[in-house]
Amino acid sequence: MTEAPHPFGLHRSLDPPGALPQAARRLDATPRARETEIAVSVKALSIDSASFRQLRETEASTGEPIASQIARIVRERGKMHNPVTGSGGILTGEVAEVGPRHPAAGRLRRGDRIASLVSLTLTPLHLDAIGDVHVSTERVEATGTAILFERTLFAPLPDDFSEQVALAVFDVAGAPATVIREARPGDVVLVIGTGKAGLLCLAAARESVGRAGMVLAVEPSADAAGRARSLGVADHVFTLDARDAVAMWRALESSTEGRLADLVVNVANASGTEASSVLCAKDEGAVLFFGMATSFAAVALGAEGLAKPTRLFIGNGYVPGHDAAALGLLRRHPALRDAFESLAAGAGP
Amino acid sequence: MTEAPHPFGLHRSLDPPGALPQAARRLDATPRARETEIAVSVKALSIDSASFRQLRETEASTGEPIASQIARIVRERGKMHNPVTGSGGILTGEVAEVGPRHPAAGRLRRGDRIASLVSLTLTPLHLDAIGDVHVSTERVEATGTAILFERTLFAPLPDDFSEQVALAVFDVAGAPATVIREARPGDVVLVIGTGKAGLLCLAAARESVGRAGMVLAVEPSADAAGRARSLGVADHVFTLDARDAVAMWRALESSTEGRLADLVVNVANASGTEASSVLCAKDEGAVLFFGMATSFAAVALGAEGLAKPTRLFIGNGYVPGHDAAALGLLRRHPALRDAFESLAAGAGP
Repeated sequence: MTEAPHPFGLHRSLDPPGALPQAARRLDATPRARETEIAVSVKALSIDSASFRQLRETEASTGEPIASQIARIVRERGKMHNPVTGSGGILTGEVAEVGPRHPAAGRLRRGDRIASLVSLTLTPLHLDAIGDVHVSTERVEATGTAILFERTLFAPLPDDFSEQVALAVFDVAGAPATVIREARPGDVVLVIGTGKAGLLCLAAARESVGRAGMVLAVEPSADAAGRARSLGVADHVFTLDARDAVAMWRALESSTEGRLADLVVNVANASGTEASSVLCAKDEGAVLFFGMATSFAAVALGAEGLAKPTRLFIGNGYVPGHDAAALGLLRRHPALRDAFESLAAGAGP
Repeated sequence: MTEAPHPFGLHRSLDPPGALPQAARRLDATPRARETEIAVSVKALSIDSASFRQLRETEASTGEPIASQIARIVRERGKMHNPVTGSGGILTGEVAEVGPRHPAAGRLRRGDRIASLVSLTLTPLHLDAIGDVHVSTERVEATGTAILFERTLFAPLPDDFSEQVALAVFDVAGAPATVIREARPGDVVLVIGTGKAGLLCLAAARESVGRAGMVLAVEPSADAAGRARSLGVADHVFTLDARDAVAMWRALESSTEGRLADLVVNVANASGTEASSVLCAKDEGAVLFFGMATSFAAVALGAEGLAKPTRLFIGNGYVPGHDAAALGLLRRHPALRDAFESLAAGAGP
């Protein structure tokens, strides 16, 4: 650790030295902040679902408790990077130390409550003790120190929301932030899928397009479509399966007098909606794909087959200020806040 | 066929009726152009590689010649849509009839030589006879009639290039056309992979960024890197594996005095280069992914892990005028033309 600390943390990679921290087998988790780093006093780890399931299965088959497995992985790797699933999670805690050359120095104070927004697979972590393991929320109480690099994303935890709601919002905050960046007043915006990300996108779209624009949604589940309607921000929420390209297109055209969408936001959980998404966008419009089930080839070949020069974006989970922007949407739309509170309490997807 | 013909050809879908033609099991291949259609007198089919391999395997196992298999599929489905691989190919031929309400009416003449640029999986086809089957080029001589819809892409075949070179150029023409749209004078453009698409992108980038900009390439094969250098359009061609994010980043920064790329164009054949591509782009820059091996999730999670708000594009094979733009690049860069002629003759990827 004698060379200058690197914005992406290459200086903490021990094996192989100088690798990107996510690719490294082992990180240096020395619990002190260097000049461009933040040291966080850890309170809890929210373990990624795939990882948590694997830890439970190992406990069932070997008898090694989840807490010991976590302690062992973190001791061996210097990070909570599940070697079987390759996945991590995020952490919450309080700021312990801010390096004088970190961009947030001066702004961020000791004791501020924050959540890391990047994966635990690239975050140096030293654990002193592990507390309760909450199986239903995949949350593990723990004390220790995590290191955030100059470029590691984090967000202050708000005082007016539960941690559960705040983390649920942060998880999908890139989607509404991108809608805000791309949608213009008067636009037609079509949102495919009305899970958490979709609800935030509907509210963001309404604010961006104004009353001169149109906000439309497509959702196969009647319950989820009903919840989306209850926000009062969409002009129409169609209960239909977006994999049926022709049905979706007809629904769109019937409600817009033949206009196609300036912006299509695909936040569907299932694959098979790629070509429909492209079909519903104007030639000079854009399609944002945020669903992790999206098939790259289906999008690219679908657009070419339809001769659609539409811009096609891979949704980027990070847009500067996305965390505050998403919380702002909840504050301005009480029905959206209600929906998140009931979803965070486990009432739905 | 009494309802008005549809721009995407829904009126030709028989099973199920009104589906998108690619999704339909059977199309109406009646060989006459309706008012917004073009009828093409077919000369040859260039069968998709995956489909051609499957046809050869079937011939080997059942004894049914490739020509009979093609005749049977086209007779049953009204299109050359291989039911096993799901893939098609493209066709070449001469314009036989242009519907009076087709956008090209007046411009396009009977006898003009054209290539269809969309898949045979969505093109109504009626075959009268099948001629020679050329195994090495996966090309099948055939006579018959194909139907192009109002929105079906096609391109005139140029007189100054062999059909083989023209089809090779058309196959990847979306990539350089997107570079032309996105690159600005003075930009740093980094091209990952120097196959056919990469070579075109290098020439396009040079023209777009001018001498004030920089054009860089990364390619793991020494031969392919040498060919890219021989074009004389790139400032540096690095012979290295783009999956090594840190090596690539250092190569970039060493040649640009620390600047990251305004535009990264990923036309690599292999996966594993997603995070490197994002790492090399400026926050306010863009990354274009054109390689079909691209993993959607690797791009999205990579960008989030690096806290890079960079715009991430799924390369769109269609940009208006892409065919003529790409041929223009070959005409203005004789070394690029030479490279395509030797590649089309089978000298490389």
